[in-house]
Formats: sequence, C-alpha cells, structure tokens
Amino acid sequence: MSFRATVLTLYPEMFPGHLGASLSGRALERGQWSIDAVQIRDFAEDKHRTVDDTPAGGGAGMVLKPDVLARAIDAVSKDDHRPRLLMSPRGRPLTQKRVRELADGPGVVIVCGRFEGVDQRVIDGRELEEVSIGDYILSGGEPAALTLLDAVVRILPGVMGNELSGVHESFEGGLLEHPHYTRPQVFEGREIPPVLTSGNHGAIAKWRETEARRLTEERRPDLLFQPVKK
Amino acid sequence: MSFRATVLTLYPEMFPGHLGASLSGRALERGQWSIDAVQIRDFAEDKHRTVDDTPAGGGAGMVLKPDVLARAIDAVSKDDHRPRLLMSPRGRPLTQKRVRELADGPGVVIVCGRFEGVDQRVIDGRELEEVSIGDYILSGGEPAALTLLDAVVRILPGVMGNELSGVHESFEGGLLEHPHYTRPQVFEGREIPPVLTSGNHGAIAKWRETEARRLTEERRPDLLFQPVKK
Repeated sequence: MSFRATVLTLYPEMFPGHLGASLSGRALERGQWSIDAVQIRDFAEDKHRTVDDTPAGGGAGMVLKPDVLARAIDAVSKDDHRPRLLMSPRGRPLTQKRVRELADGPGVVIVCGRFEGVDQRVIDGRELEEVSIGDYILSGGEPAALTLLDAVVRILPGVMGNELSGVHESFEGGLLEHPHYTRPQVFEGREIPPVLTSGNHGAIAKWRETEARRLTEERRPDLLFQPVKK
Repeated sequence: MSFRATVLTLYPEMFPGHLGASLSGRALERGQWSIDAVQIRDFAEDKHRTVDDTPAGGGAGMVLKPDVLARAIDAVSKDDHRPRLLMSPRGRPLTQKRVRELADGPGVVIVCGRFEGVDQRVIDGRELEEVSIGDYILSGGEPAALTLLDAVVRILPGVMGNELSGVHESFEGGLLEHPHYTRPQVFEGREIPPVLTSGNHGAIAKWRETEARRLTEERRPDLLFQPVKK
C-alpha cells in the first residue's frame, strides 16, 4: 500500500499544487503516493451549504461548524487508522522527526482550517492533532498542508532516488548544515576554502563539523539545548 | 506601487500555485501584488545549460553554481532595493514580525535552492538573507517561498478585506489563540462553555485570555520566555 493523503478543504483546487511538479509529481504519476482533496462544503446539509457561523461569545471572523466538519472527517476516515491532522498556528511545531513518523505510516488525513478557526468540539471529538509549520499566520491550512506533504513525500521510498543525499542534512544530526562550495575555484575574488580542495578527508570532515557547529551557535542556539533530533 | 515578488527557481511552473486561488488569487488579478517566476537555468552559459556541480570536498548531492545564480539575481534586481531572501533550513526562522516588515516594503526577491545547497560565495556576495520556515526538510525552496508569500500577501492592504479579523490571532499578542465555538449549542453531547453565551463581555474576555495562556503554557512555553512578538 502506498502512502495515501486525504485533504479536507474549502479549496480543493489548490491540490496537488506544486506537489504535482518535479519529483513529487513524478512519484504521484507512478502511484508511489496519492492525494485526494475533498470539499468540506459537500457535507453541509442546508440549502445554502453553510460551513461556518459566528463565534460564540462574539468577536471578528467565522468558525467552521463542528457538525459539517465531523461528517466530512467521518466520510473519509472510516475503517482507517491514518493520523488526523489539523493545520493550525496553535499546533505543536512540525519537526523532521514527526515528518519521518508520518512517512513511515499508511498516510494522513489533513483538515485545513480557514476563517477564524475550527470549533473546539470537533478537534476534541475527532482527536485531531493540531500541527503548526511555523510561527506566522497563513491565509488557511492549505499552504501548510502542501508544505507538510512536500516534506513527507520527499522521503517516501523511491521518490527522490539518488537525488536524496540524506546524510548531511540540516537537523538530521541536530546541527544546521555547513556551507557549500563548487566550481569555479575563484568567484568574484572569493576562493573556495583551501581545506576543501586539499584531498585530506579527515580535515574536510573536521572543517564541516566545525562550521556546522559555528553556524548553529550563531543562528540557532536553541537547537543545541534540545535533545538531538533524528 | 504594489508589492512585487520575483522568484528565482528551477521550477517556475510551481508559481503562482495556490497563490493563484482564493483571496490571494483575486488580489493578484486586481493587481494588488504581482509575482514573476524566473528560470535560473536561463542564466547558464554553456551548451548544456548547467546550473549545478559537485561539492568541493566531496560528498553527496549537487551545489548550485555561484556564477549562474549571481547572473540571475543581478538580472532581476538591478536598481532595486527589495530584500533578497534565500529559502533554506539553515536560515533564521520566519516570524510574523518579519512577515509584517516584508509586507510593509516594496516586495521581495526570493531564491529557491534545490540539490544539496547553494554556493556560499553567492550568498555572501549578493547578501542573501537566509530564511527558514520551520525545522523540517523540503524538496526545495519552492514550497517555502509559496508559504512565505501567502503569509505576506494575506496582510497586504485590501487583500483580505473584512475577512481579516486581525486582532486575536495567534502570535500577534505573544500567545496562542483561545479555543473557538459556534452553533449548535450542543454537539455530540459537548456544550459550548456557558460563559461564552452569558452575554458578560468582561467574563468572556477573561476566559479567552486565561485559555490562551493555558494553551501557550501547555504547548509552547518557549513563547512565554521570549520578547512579545508583534
């Protein structure tokens, strides 16, 4: 069984979006994963196909109705053990570790919020895992869902082939990646650091480790005081 | 002058992607912002239009050549004071504050990396600001660029209209957002918290503040020990 993504959204036309191009697009054509975008509005039962209502307690914005969303979730995840995610800035920050866990599983059901938010009772009642891709506000859950799926699809078996270098990636060893250089030897008066063209593999490895640590200390000291991410 | 985005990429067909739909798409049609996706490969000068080469010092993956990328950057940002970003997991994490700064400016030039990385000398020589949208690895800079632009375009003047509730959003006050509820009053045996339907505006505001603080302490204690984000 290949990895199966189902996205609940008010904008199904946004999918597969950029995931239909490049390596993820070719893997989609080969059937190495699949994506199904489901219109939440199809599960509204009134004449106007209403999906949202004003927030209890007042305030700006609209809230996705719990009954409509619950019907949509139930319709796509019957007899199904895929994790159910809700993309939300209130969620736990996405990590490469969680990406790997998702990629190792059967797939994912993703709910994309819009408007002010989603009724808390459907989050509780359907055990939605709230996931945030970063500390900024998006127009809705769709860009976040596409980003999360890109990270997951990329590491599915066979998707990247030999383009997946894998070993020295940022976060994989708990550090940011060291700087990269390629030809020409001199670019606008700037040379490739001599150690990298010395042929001394031990010295190269040491230089890369030192640079990775220096960059991490400078830019992301928070990573150094956490358990190493895998 | 409306906000102007130029994206340097090996996959121009990924743009405008989901930004062509919904509110950002309508704003694009109205000319409230613009996006131009430029093929980096068009700036290669050899017969095979080579954009990458093997990393100095060895190792897996390929590195974007500094000369090709520098020509592409120079071609799109002559006489131009837009910030130049490089989407990269090594970058500083994107925040809502940086999103606001970008939205207040004339636009942005975004370089999307692919392969193993980008030659450090073009990052230095063209003063690229490395930006990360989160601690996970993507197939390239394109999904990250689309996500960043979604966050920026959303707050451009006139784009969201009255759908932008603005005030009580996650991060804007340094806290995650409180839970939301809407009709029906009872959903699968779960009631809307009585305070929200009490009509007591002081009590409602207090409940929301308390819940926002509780959620933030539970999920993101890191936000409470940082300067308040605006």
